[in-house]
Amino acid sequence: MAALRHSATLCPLSSCSQTVLNPIHHTPILSILIQDVFQLLPRGAGGPELKTAIPGPKSQEHIAKLDKVFDTRSLNMLADYTQSFGNYFVDPDGNKLLDVYAQIASIPLGYNNPALKKAAQSPEMIDAIINRPILETGILKVAPKGLDQVFTAMAGSDANETAYKAAFMWRRMKERGGPTVEFTEEEMQSSMNNQTPGASQLSIMSFKTAFHGRLFGSLSTTRSKPIHKLDIPAFDWPQATFPLLKYPLEEHAEENAKAEADSIAEVEDLIKNYHVPPCAVIVEPIQSEGGDNHASPAFFRKLREVTAKHNVLLIVDEVQTGVGATGKFWAHDHWDLPSPPDMVTFSKKAQTAGYYFGNPELRPNKPYRQFNTWMGDPARCLLFRAIIDEVQRLDLVANTAKVGDYLYGKLEALAQKYPEEFKNLRGKNRGTFIAFDNPNRDQFIAKVKKLGVNIGGSGANAVRLRPMLIFEKQHADILLETLEKAVTSA
Amino acid sequence: MAALRHSATLCPLSSCSQTVLNPIHHTPILSILIQDVFQLLPRGAGGPELKTAIPGPKSQEHIAKLDKVFDTRSLNMLADYTQSFGNYFVDPDGNKLLDVYAQIASIPLGYNNPALKKAAQSPEMIDAIINRPILETGILKVAPKGLDQVFTAMAGSDANETAYKAAFMWRRMKERGGPTVEFTEEEMQSSMNNQTPGASQLSIMSFKTAFHGRLFGSLSTTRSKPIHKLDIPAFDWPQATFPLLKYPLEEHAEENAKAEADSIAEVEDLIKNYHVPPCAVIVEPIQSEGGDNHASPAFFRKLREVTAKHNVLLIVDEVQTGVGATGKFWAHDHWDLPSPPDMVTFSKKAQTAGYYFGNPELRPNKPYRQFNTWMGDPARCLLFRAIIDEVQRLDLVANTAKVGDYLYGKLEALAQKYPEEFKNLRGKNRGTFIAFDNPNRDQFIAKVKKLGVNIGGSGANAVRLRPMLIFEKQHADILLETLEKAVTSA
Repeated sequence: MAALRHSATLCPLSSCSQTVLNPIHHTPILSILIQDVFQLLPRGAGGPELKTAIPGPKSQEHIAKLDKVFDTRSLNMLADYTQSFGNYFVDPDGNKLLDVYAQIASIPLGYNNPALKKAAQSPEMIDAIINRPILETGILKVAPKGLDQVFTAMAGSDANETAYKAAFMWRRMKERGGPTVEFTEEEMQSSMNNQTPGASQLSIMSFKTAFHGRLFGSLSTTRSKPIHKLDIPAFDWPQATFPLLKYPLEEHAEENAKAEADSIAEVEDLIKNYHVPPCAVIVEPIQSEGGDNHASPAFFRKLREVTAKHNVLLIVDEVQTGVGATGKFWAHDHWDLPSPPDMVTFSKKAQTAGYYFGNPELRPNKPYRQFNTWMGDPARCLLFRAIIDEVQRLDLVANTAKVGDYLYGKLEALAQKYPEEFKNLRGKNRGTFIAFDNPNRDQFIAKVKKLGVNIGGSGANAVRLRPMLIFEKQHADILLETLEKAVTSA
Repeated sequence: MAALRHSATLCPLSSCSQTVLNPIHHTPILSILIQDVFQLLPRGAGGPELKTAIPGPKSQEHIAKLDKVFDTRSLNMLADYTQSFGNYFVDPDGNKLLDVYAQIASIPLGYNNPALKKAAQSPEMIDAIINRPILETGILKVAPKGLDQVFTAMAGSDANETAYKAAFMWRRMKERGGPTVEFTEEEMQSSMNNQTPGASQLSIMSFKTAFHGRLFGSLSTTRSKPIHKLDIPAFDWPQATFPLLKYPLEEHAEENAKAEADSIAEVEDLIKNYHVPPCAVIVEPIQSEGGDNHASPAFFRKLREVTAKHNVLLIVDEVQTGVGATGKFWAHDHWDLPSPPDMVTFSKKAQTAGYYFGNPELRPNKPYRQFNTWMGDPARCLLFRAIIDEVQRLDLVANTAKVGDYLYGKLEALAQKYPEEFKNLRGKNRGTFIAFDNPNRDQFIAKVKKLGVNIGGSGANAVRLRPMLIFEKQHADILLETLEKAVTSA
């Protein structure tokens, strides 16, 4: 038995709204996958279906059992994955929901995808599970332009933290005068006491409302919500203001340009003057947990320029935006950068995690400085390879761009009809990576769930769409119908 | 193709000694597993076998290819896991080595274990790989006495870090006056700036020469070697001296008792006086990466007493010692504690990771404070369940205790014959978790490898034995013969 996870950013102080389903009309199965899934019909066919209230009696029994040993307050609802398929999950009581949240954007190709099932049954996977080999898994087939090396990790948090470690080592190597200059005795001794100069007094700059993970280093760069940070010791690292764009963009061009220019100026000021000097800036292409905050390609080009100018590394955190959901494989492909980011971190839809880099100077100057027992999980790397193959075979990035444009257009029309409920619509030309604000977000989300669609929030007021790459026009239509019903019904 | 990993603590400044094999005599297959492996003979039978130098031409080819995209300096040698079996691994050139290092103690039941292979092929595993359900996986079947809850993580580092987070939240909850007291506005605002009071000014105390991981929080408690810590910012957290026992123990009873009493006094002094107050002490039952440093059960009982007295949590890091290798399932079972540790962390042989706890107060007072996208990997949890079943079915903990006693007795005899080469022999009654010091450790290890046995080091001079739980008398005899040969041959 399995559990769906809530958004890490749904207001934790409000009580967890339980989901209740109502039947919604039949939807045809994703056409481009039809040949693969035919044998699974009729389980995969049809739209949302309700058999009991949610949680039904079987779910309640499982939750009570699970709660004895595991904190269940962060659980969204239980799912029976053996019965879930494609864009739909089924709970233990047989209720079936359209899922546009996808385990916080971490399911790329739908539940029980046949291609992934095949990969999971391969002899190579069995070897990967029981023996943990280091594999050539094709992760570099989708390496961002200009980056041809990878360091693998277990999850998004440690992908970011190992990237930070590479940044600190790189900067100190430069300060020392190159990779062959040895550490001093004082550095070696002070490092063992967690003191300078061995432990460097350098920082990683992040942006306000950013989310980069929850371990100690990554949490020091996370600025999403107090509940994520309270009571945990943190490093004295700087944060710059992320430009808060106003919508519709066309009507606020001047203000928005100024907000972006101000942000860049603040970044440059902090680089030059912060008392713990930054050696890297980390940024999400779209601040996801922080409320789906966008900035223009011009902003990111400027950020690349100002970091390069001051010899500060630029780390792009694509943990949530990567692997196709924005209508490009990597969201930063939208920016047309003059030179690539220094590192790009990934996880979630990739099932594995890590960072790409290109500059050989980012390999530490000695072995064992960037090292751990497992160096990522080969089983998860194999799964990423199967995902990449399937994304390419079915052209799912193009599909997501197309469906996203359709969905955005329809949402624009809804926003004109109900401007208060679909405020600050954003994500144009960003695939299905779309969000809007709703003044009563938590109630709105609960209502949409009761109407049969699993949907998530982020930041203070955002409703964020995070469907899988196999989300099609038909699913978009169910979603749109449900959103409108949630606005108009009592 | 796969790569064996070097010890994280083998001196990184010395060049990586490549392994060359010589043939060693045939060894019968582990008798207690004979029924399971019969179909795999003759691949699993026979002792070490040499076909080429190591690395041979095929290995060299693979390493060169891998090095283009991956830092290969930390690789020990390449293995062909499809041909490896039980206590032996085989490299791409067909060379076969007895492995008493087991990927830094992280292989519990031998390469290509049939029971694990069966688990890897199960429908439940396929579901776990492609859908990532949260599972009831039987991790609690082996929960340490007095601890009946678990929080799952991805690897040892984040198991420790999430335990630290629980400790900080617990201590601040107590200071605030209980779980229902709300955070103040000042706490919430300052936490977003990484400042007190929101970001607590508390610490985790660890011991000198300890190893607890390599991410930012865990690395702040790691005190193994400068190369692990250099250039990485660290928290101002305290370290106490770990009692450095002298061997043979019988001849240094008084000195050792004093060293342990001094250490406890230092712990108490730091708890009372360190300027960043500790809310928890973390300790390894045997400091593994730091050189296999032991302390007596009386020392740990005293540590439990002094931490409890001052309301400081005791976290026992069983990442390397757990899951049977010391002749008990958990190494701290040897201590006969009056009350259990507050948290016990685990990983490596368990294939998954996390921390056990018992006190319900260690569940954060609100949801989403201890949370992440994946909350551990269900596929790895299933594997741990299969490992537990196999350990119980074959009584492998008792086997390890018995083989360990046999091995220790024989090593004692070797130490009498060659006192300089087998100095400070330690690990009596601790299963196969045995180590000794050698004045020319790195050369000694290289020599043993050339004689056909893969073996590891730790700390400054230690040779550490970390065989799997299926290590038997026959394998011990090969090891003993090889160790003596390494001492006597040129």
